[in-house]
Amino acid sequence: MTFKPIEYKDGVCRMIDQRLLPTEEIWIDTIDYHGVADAIRTMVVRGAPAIGVAAAFGAYLGARDIEADDFDSFFARFEKVCAVLAATRPTAVNLFWALDRMKSFAKACQAYPVADIKIALEYEAMAIADEDIRVNLAMGRHGEALIPENARILTHCNAGALATGGYGTALGVVRAAQAAGKNVSVLADETRPFLQGARLTAWELQKDNIPVTLICDNMAGYLMSKGEIDCVIVGADRIAANGDTANKIGTYTVAVLAKEHGIPFYVAAPISTIDMAIADGSGIPIEERESREVTHCGDKQLAPTGVAVRNPAFDVTPARLVTAIITERGVVKGDYLKGINTIVNKGR
Amino acid sequence: MTFKPIEYKDGVCRMIDQRLLPTEEIWIDTIDYHGVADAIRTMVVRGAPAIGVAAAFGAYLGARDIEADDFDSFFARFEKVCAVLAATRPTAVNLFWALDRMKSFAKACQAYPVADIKIALEYEAMAIADEDIRVNLAMGRHGEALIPENARILTHCNAGALATGGYGTALGVVRAAQAAGKNVSVLADETRPFLQGARLTAWELQKDNIPVTLICDNMAGYLMSKGEIDCVIVGADRIAANGDTANKIGTYTVAVLAKEHGIPFYVAAPISTIDMAIADGSGIPIEERESREVTHCGDKQLAPTGVAVRNPAFDVTPARLVTAIITERGVVKGDYLKGINTIVNKGR
Repeated sequence: MTFKPIEYKDGVCRMIDQRLLPTEEIWIDTIDYHGVADAIRTMVVRGAPAIGVAAAFGAYLGARDIEADDFDSFFARFEKVCAVLAATRPTAVNLFWALDRMKSFAKACQAYPVADIKIALEYEAMAIADEDIRVNLAMGRHGEALIPENARILTHCNAGALATGGYGTALGVVRAAQAAGKNVSVLADETRPFLQGARLTAWELQKDNIPVTLICDNMAGYLMSKGEIDCVIVGADRIAANGDTANKIGTYTVAVLAKEHGIPFYVAAPISTIDMAIADGSGIPIEERESREVTHCGDKQLAPTGVAVRNPAFDVTPARLVTAIITERGVVKGDYLKGINTIVNKGR
Repeated sequence: MTFKPIEYKDGVCRMIDQRLLPTEEIWIDTIDYHGVADAIRTMVVRGAPAIGVAAAFGAYLGARDIEADDFDSFFARFEKVCAVLAATRPTAVNLFWALDRMKSFAKACQAYPVADIKIALEYEAMAIADEDIRVNLAMGRHGEALIPENARILTHCNAGALATGGYGTALGVVRAAQAAGKNVSVLADETRPFLQGARLTAWELQKDNIPVTLICDNMAGYLMSKGEIDCVIVGADRIAANGDTANKIGTYTVAVLAKEHGIPFYVAAPISTIDMAIADGSGIPIEERESREVTHCGDKQLAPTGVAVRNPAFDVTPARLVTAIITERGVVKGDYLKGINTIVNKGR
């Protein structure tokens, strides 16, 4: 699938509005960093790697509009732009990774005129977007070796083309397995409350002619007990140094069910999702979102007025429940503390 | 709570339309057995014990309209009425239990004139409805002893007043715990796709001033991992002789999660939910319902057109995951095969 949820050209960062899929395909043009920040906050764009790509373009658009003659005053204001973008969502680490990369790149260019640094930052943002697709293709190659012929694969949320620069992490592995001639099919958890599975995963797999069956989140256990699921692949929003993995709410439940049924549970994520500064999952901040996402579906009220609601957007799956972590540099399993440290430093 | 979802008077069986709660409180009057059968099939009324009560009134309304002078021709046609009612939904055994009871009662009255049998059947249906509430009150007394002070109780689906003649099974235990002065609160799984938790459990607990917090089905695991759930209580649609329990889809997942976290998992159900003719859960038929329940929310389309869907309405929780079964005759735990056999025959 060549679909990309974020297209950049000549100062316009265009994103498909993922809140309206699958019934409407509307693209939103953002022309400054405030527009990009709003798009991330309101989930026009979502998915850890896609948030990173959007943030990179947002950082460039912010840099472009800074009026400053010397590097120091430019950089002070650039840091403020990046802080606004960083404050949009707390859990996915790719957001902070992309902003840190843009800041480091600007610093590395400080000997050049500000006008040139701006041009270089535009190219750096485009490089981040392009690399993300290449990274996903590599992840697919490493991951598809784990997928058996005729596998019925459960996935949760959307870790597909829509969640990345393109191709996808978890769904990239599925695409690679199909490309390798394996007759795979996908069971997609609908993923309440935002329904990324029903709206996005089903949509992009259908576009690619990969067989997909939609289920409610609470049906996966039943289907596992009936022997109808062969493996699970999910993406990640942040992976701690010990392999504990934050991902969309409900992922932990799927991992517990997979363990109960002896089904492999795989996480597919780029190295940029690994946060070596966090020792284990307890240190990963979990975003709680507004109650209306749970009590309403569009304008339709589902629950009595005034009912109390919990709406954590993510949960943490402990490393002991993860069969393997698939990255663009290879597959990590077993001793995650050691394996992750090795693979993160492999590229340095 | 004195709320009853089914009211019967003078040949009219009036039911609150549970599809429209919590935003609309509309009552539907059914005046013949076809109306009752439609109400069960389309889920105007749902919940195993409530379905049993509705079916009993349906059977009476059918009997009333049979034109026959002798018992044999009356009974042959009464059996057809009961067959239509029995064909509405396959999983909840209370439906068949209530119809069998009405048929046995008619047979026991066969020496009397058909006109008198019809009157007797009306009283029998009313007795079934009244007994269901008494049974729930008894279940509450037995069950509340298991609930600790300040318990934060997770429930799935709606096993409350709305699912029964009144008071509720699982929520009857919660009501009894509150009445006993325990400061309990409830976490309600929204229960996709029909949202019985969001729409019904939240509504009836709010009406009774029992603290309730709504969550999506995929959040229970996260809250258990955070130590925010002390016990689970659910109802049942059919319990096999060995204690395997069919209940609303997602119950099995909650039971697996409860085991993983060492949290007690209780089933509250009347003896009429126990099916001694079924040895274990593998023999319980699981209804699969139409895909539109998953792909749409009201008129709003959630998933791409034409996507494949699975929609099993129930799952089976193996007895090994059940800490205790609470009935109106007492609590069964440990050796379910023996304990269930003893408690079922206690009343004979």
